[in-house]
Amino acid sequence: MRLCIKHITQFVSKDRVYARKDEALKHVKALYEKTGAGSDFLGWVQLPASTPENQIADIEELAAFYKENVEIVVVVGIGGSYLGAKAALEALSDNFWAMKKSESPKVIFAGQNISEDYMCELLDLLETRKYGVVVISKSGTTTEPAVAFRLLKAHLENKVGKTKAKDLIVAITDEKRGALRTLAQLEGYRTFVIPDDVGGRFSVLTPVGLLPIAIAGFNIRQMLQGAADMQKETAPDVPFENNIAAIYAAARNELYNAGKTVEILAGYHPKLLYITEWWKQLYGESEGKEEKGIFPAGVTLTADLHSMGQYIQEGLRNIFETVISVERTAHKMRIPNVPDNLDTLNFLSEKRIDEVNKMAELGTMLAHVDGGVPNIRIEIPAINEYNLGKLFYFFEIACGISGYMLGVNPFDQPGVEAYKKNMFALLDKPGFEEESKKIKARLN
Amino acid sequence: MRLCIKHITQFVSKDRVYARKDEALKHVKALYEKTGAGSDFLGWVQLPASTPENQIADIEELAAFYKENVEIVVVVGIGGSYLGAKAALEALSDNFWAMKKSESPKVIFAGQNISEDYMCELLDLLETRKYGVVVISKSGTTTEPAVAFRLLKAHLENKVGKTKAKDLIVAITDEKRGALRTLAQLEGYRTFVIPDDVGGRFSVLTPVGLLPIAIAGFNIRQMLQGAADMQKETAPDVPFENNIAAIYAAARNELYNAGKTVEILAGYHPKLLYITEWWKQLYGESEGKEEKGIFPAGVTLTADLHSMGQYIQEGLRNIFETVISVERTAHKMRIPNVPDNLDTLNFLSEKRIDEVNKMAELGTMLAHVDGGVPNIRIEIPAINEYNLGKLFYFFEIACGISGYMLGVNPFDQPGVEAYKKNMFALLDKPGFEEESKKIKARLN
Repeated sequence: MRLCIKHITQFVSKDRVYARKDEALKHVKALYEKTGAGSDFLGWVQLPASTPENQIADIEELAAFYKENVEIVVVVGIGGSYLGAKAALEALSDNFWAMKKSESPKVIFAGQNISEDYMCELLDLLETRKYGVVVISKSGTTTEPAVAFRLLKAHLENKVGKTKAKDLIVAITDEKRGALRTLAQLEGYRTFVIPDDVGGRFSVLTPVGLLPIAIAGFNIRQMLQGAADMQKETAPDVPFENNIAAIYAAARNELYNAGKTVEILAGYHPKLLYITEWWKQLYGESEGKEEKGIFPAGVTLTADLHSMGQYIQEGLRNIFETVISVERTAHKMRIPNVPDNLDTLNFLSEKRIDEVNKMAELGTMLAHVDGGVPNIRIEIPAINEYNLGKLFYFFEIACGISGYMLGVNPFDQPGVEAYKKNMFALLDKPGFEEESKKIKARLN
Repeated sequence: MRLCIKHITQFVSKDRVYARKDEALKHVKALYEKTGAGSDFLGWVQLPASTPENQIADIEELAAFYKENVEIVVVVGIGGSYLGAKAALEALSDNFWAMKKSESPKVIFAGQNISEDYMCELLDLLETRKYGVVVISKSGTTTEPAVAFRLLKAHLENKVGKTKAKDLIVAITDEKRGALRTLAQLEGYRTFVIPDDVGGRFSVLTPVGLLPIAIAGFNIRQMLQGAADMQKETAPDVPFENNIAAIYAAARNELYNAGKTVEILAGYHPKLLYITEWWKQLYGESEGKEEKGIFPAGVTLTADLHSMGQYIQEGLRNIFETVISVERTAHKMRIPNVPDNLDTLNFLSEKRIDEVNKMAELGTMLAHVDGGVPNIRIEIPAINEYNLGKLFYFFEIACGISGYMLGVNPFDQPGVEAYKKNMFALLDKPGFEEESKKIKARLN
């Protein structure tokens, strides 16, 4: 994995980025030594290399159990209990996985919305399928997943009986406390632990992400290995010029200081779509506070060159672009020659499709830089478990450094409660009587 | 359909919006009388009410033919030849359509990327399925769809023979000129016309959008009716205070002038995801030029309240939010009561899921406004063909007005060529010899 910041230097000099070297490395140290803001939530920093073998084996065993017994596993979760697994699964799966047969169960998600149609159509699908449920919630009381789980639990128990259902349901939750822990004990569900010191958006390399990824048939050992290797490459003893996470953090902060307040994460492979969504949570939730932070946006190219491309090329000049560049595809296919050449594309005959994609990528980078959009490039050799592990860890550690550089606590999310409080007041939740009165008066 | 701008007035007064009344109505008139910039591309303005009956019947007949003969139809197109149909299909289809049996063929897309893996995995899927191809391109030489069509044409001819293949392929293209028109004549494909005076991003209510929508089994007459009704509601003789498109255009321009440079389109139903993508092209490509324009972004709630929610609540205060609010769901389901109430959600027992969703929506609006984010609300009664027709036309006509207010030509896209020129130069396309030399020198 490599990072290239050459094409930001027309806008922000390399010297300016490197001037923040000591500061960046100080923050790396603070993340390891837990001396910075939010230090109770740094369990993820040294986790990849220290995941116990028995936990990995337990996950693999459960994945094997599901493979033998069900066609579908519904993963119930929202935010960090959804986006990491979803990102990995979309990246690693066939583009048309939903329409193809697969050896491992198909993993689909619920509890990431409050959509009545979504739940009805999901239960309709499950009516005729063998399925299991993995419910992920630290507290067990978060509205979206809790509502979905009420419905799924009732549906499954009704379908296969309470005894069989309990074997098909797994809970990932707090080690000791909370509604879901209590329920799991009462019902006798198998459980996995969400570590106390890992926040939702940093949890993809805990059972929260690893179990769904293993269930879908992917190799979580390779993913953890990739993350552990990236941990080494970005550790406190690595000099700034070799620490790509520190450089990325410094570069984006200098771009932000230069007025570039929107970062667009761009991929040239449709499978990377949810990597972008995961990244948006990671950075938006970590840095978007105290009326500051880069606004994270995403595009899938070349599709969106025929959509957001015009804006990126010529709109407000407050944006920069970070491209995830992939060296090798999984499959190989060449463009056929057509004798009549009506479409005038015979200059591409017998070329690999990916060669055209790469020239689109290079041509776009040059065009956007010429148009006034700084460009950062992150290169990975291929989309696979190992490299995704690296990428996840890279973005996480860079996010910690970057948030500290911005001067915020990257590990809290105080703003997420505001809508919940209003919603509970509007729905007359017990304990919210005062808020209910106030908000209803306001609506009159 | 209704529009509410009450919750922008803490930031931009109603007077300020209404002060642009005459200007907005002048632009509506200019769109009808074709006196403004880009007036050669205003065919879509009066199209919904004047679509000829024989064109609708032809589309329906072809949809019936596909329904009888294939399981899958691959629609090949990019940008406006992709996003409109995709937006409508995702909005109208079951959330799990790809995994369920359907009476009508499943519509999937190609040519919206240059992904080697995507094409390989698509051809692998098609190996065992009966399928047809609808290829959409004005010129027939746009790289992405042309490459995909080369591969699909060869694959289908190889699979069913050239004679049968020609009956399963339909071209939507220019009436007289271009590579795809010529090819269609040579091969004997059925064709539909992309009108000369309708740009890609305004083409969803032409055969470009209507044919794929009809193939998937949806009612295009109702969609056109909705659009035609919205045309009446936003026509030049409608006073400003009743013209919701003019009000939306004026409101977002005043917000932009007040420093709100990012508009986030938010939906509370996962099916609206690609409506947002279509809207991003419409507004981004129409307004993002001359170093100005609102940056269009999107969120799917409540999912993204656990992702981008923190940023929206407390990040940089240069954003505003436009919510698509849906009155009725298609299905009905209530939240079951659970005697133990471990998850503490019994205050929701026997409530409709959508009631909770609506309170999340209302609570979020209040929270975001309190946090400094102006809120525009667009209300539709339900997600169906009629209302989507209304919504498409509403956004289109509002976009024309809004672009004129911003002072740009909303109907060109000069910036889209820049990456193509570089790509062709890098790939040694004949005719680009000079550019090839220059760009290669630059890379050394």
